[in-house]
Amino acid sequence: MTQRAPAAIGDRLEDVDTPALLLDLDAFERNQKTLFDLVKNRVRVRPHAKTHKCAEVAKRQIALGAVGMCCQKVSEAEAMVDGGVADVLVSNEIVGARKIERLAALARRAKVGVCVDHPDNVRELGKTGANLDVYIEIDVGMRRCGVPPGEPAVLLAKEIQKHANLRFAGLQAYHGRAQHIRSMEERHGVIETAAQHVFHTKRLLQKAGIACPIVTGAGSGTFMLEVGAGAWDEIQPGSYAFMDADYARNEWAAPLPRFEHALFVLATVMSRPAGMAIVDAGLKASSVDSGMPGVWEMPGVSYTKASDEHGWLEGKALPALGEKVLLVPGHCDPTINLYDWYVCVRNRRVEDLWPISARGAVY
Amino acid sequence: MTQRAPAAIGDRLEDVDTPALLLDLDAFERNQKTLFDLVKNRVRVRPHAKTHKCAEVAKRQIALGAVGMCCQKVSEAEAMVDGGVADVLVSNEIVGARKIERLAALARRAKVGVCVDHPDNVRELGKTGANLDVYIEIDVGMRRCGVPPGEPAVLLAKEIQKHANLRFAGLQAYHGRAQHIRSMEERHGVIETAAQHVFHTKRLLQKAGIACPIVTGAGSGTFMLEVGAGAWDEIQPGSYAFMDADYARNEWAAPLPRFEHALFVLATVMSRPAGMAIVDAGLKASSVDSGMPGVWEMPGVSYTKASDEHGWLEGKALPALGEKVLLVPGHCDPTINLYDWYVCVRNRRVEDLWPISARGAVY
Repeated sequence: MTQRAPAAIGDRLEDVDTPALLLDLDAFERNQKTLFDLVKNRVRVRPHAKTHKCAEVAKRQIALGAVGMCCQKVSEAEAMVDGGVADVLVSNEIVGARKIERLAALARRAKVGVCVDHPDNVRELGKTGANLDVYIEIDVGMRRCGVPPGEPAVLLAKEIQKHANLRFAGLQAYHGRAQHIRSMEERHGVIETAAQHVFHTKRLLQKAGIACPIVTGAGSGTFMLEVGAGAWDEIQPGSYAFMDADYARNEWAAPLPRFEHALFVLATVMSRPAGMAIVDAGLKASSVDSGMPGVWEMPGVSYTKASDEHGWLEGKALPALGEKVLLVPGHCDPTINLYDWYVCVRNRRVEDLWPISARGAVY
Repeated sequence: MTQRAPAAIGDRLEDVDTPALLLDLDAFERNQKTLFDLVKNRVRVRPHAKTHKCAEVAKRQIALGAVGMCCQKVSEAEAMVDGGVADVLVSNEIVGARKIERLAALARRAKVGVCVDHPDNVRELGKTGANLDVYIEIDVGMRRCGVPPGEPAVLLAKEIQKHANLRFAGLQAYHGRAQHIRSMEERHGVIETAAQHVFHTKRLLQKAGIACPIVTGAGSGTFMLEVGAGAWDEIQPGSYAFMDADYARNEWAAPLPRFEHALFVLATVMSRPAGMAIVDAGLKASSVDSGMPGVWEMPGVSYTKASDEHGWLEGKALPALGEKVLLVPGHCDPTINLYDWYVCVRNRRVEDLWPISARGAVY
């Protein structure tokens, strides 16, 4: 069921079949270096595999100093461990008997962390007997999962301490919505508030005599704000290595670096009706949840609409029939999850093909 | 890289891991019967594999009388032929040397049709020497691919006739946009106009002495209008077997039947912060290009927002932590394309698991 790769190593870029998910290796490597250099000796980096879904990317992040991977799903964590990652944190609540069984099985062959926000869930994890690092997720303003900061976290930590196989490993404090707030000033304010929630919770834990080894969180759109706030020990960025059209709409300024677009969908113009160029990449080639893809280095041309397998390019100086076009996905994570392969390109040649081994690992 | 199935045959519905793509076999079979009974002896049915991506579904459609499958991509057609389908029409323009090579190779092991809308493309297909049924796509109002109706189609048919390996097989006349027009009356008007374009083009072809064996087109939202208009010989519905929240928003009235929801995403409530239930199915579990998923048989509860791996349920009488919820995808085609398996359920038991063998077949 895995699709064949749309290219072979050594192929010229112009011969890659389309649509294809391209990774510009030079830009990708520069993004990696930018991030790891910036935070060196300040926080641990545990990049998020929910973005890349690929053990080859994970290996390269670990080589640069990452302590392990974050995952959102047990199946994603399994794919990372299968690919050689020894330390995974499922930065998410795992609810349901079968999932918990799989998580426990994984903990017998790797260092596994998991998040909780409910005492019933803690008890289910306790029953497995598996050694797990348990992080309490606190809601620092995103309004998704997590207990409210402060006392509820202390109560939950006490519940964790009742189970010999569970180790209270710290707090998960991630503000997902903040990543996509356009203004730097507003993002800064939101992360400052999040930091206050973390500090408050840590103070109460300390008062209760409970050590809080690690506070983990942060994403590509805010991580230097978390680093600056001093409340986090570990960051979880994922998109920084790839970028997308939505992140590009953020204001990027110090202390955040400017990452480069390293991820593209290569498409072909398959029809040229009057006033339009129709490309062979639609909804199944680039997720449109955060808007249409951008058109790379083709000023005046916009991707205006998508159907399942088609995209509409409109504007001035439209590309010709058969011409290839680079699209910048609106949102990198769900776009990568559509593909089986990264076609890794350098100097207009296919240098490598990386399997997206956790593609579809949703459960 | 193919993910394990989230269930085993014989499992109870409540034990299926989540998110999972569920197919309600009773509803699916009733939808199949409804469609094939309605159009029997009136038009040929060539269902669209772009929706189901699954040779098991194709086999069942062929058993009911389908003449073969429609596909949108060469890789999709390859997956169908690999799965035992002997007759495929790529209802799309195939542009690019590698794609055309693969199409030609496929034509040596199955009956293969393809659409064209440009003489350069016809010449490229001619050069392959492969026996291909070539359909001219005419734009009947959708404004996507296709030549304008009338004389341009005649000119293109003459170009096809120059190539001994190419057989002019007829017209592709599909109005995709019409499928989702809410009002029956408006949909009817649009298809009537499309029919006039077809009749006009057929008259000009006849005048030029060119036989037009088949006019093919139509989708789940309009097919009985095409049947009634009398200009089509073959219909290409895909969604009818599954349905989705977007199609459910259409007005459904005679001559169109009412199809049932047969496709669901099974999700689990993984967190219960105040006023919300967070489920484990987000953007990677249900495509939101046509809106958020519906919540099945849970009145007063809405799925209001999605992030990559999470969905927000809000409303009255929210489900409890660990409770399972059935979601109705906003758009079936790109949602099915996220999964490796249909979990086929009857009487709350997993009766079968069908591999989605053309999942990710985008090129």
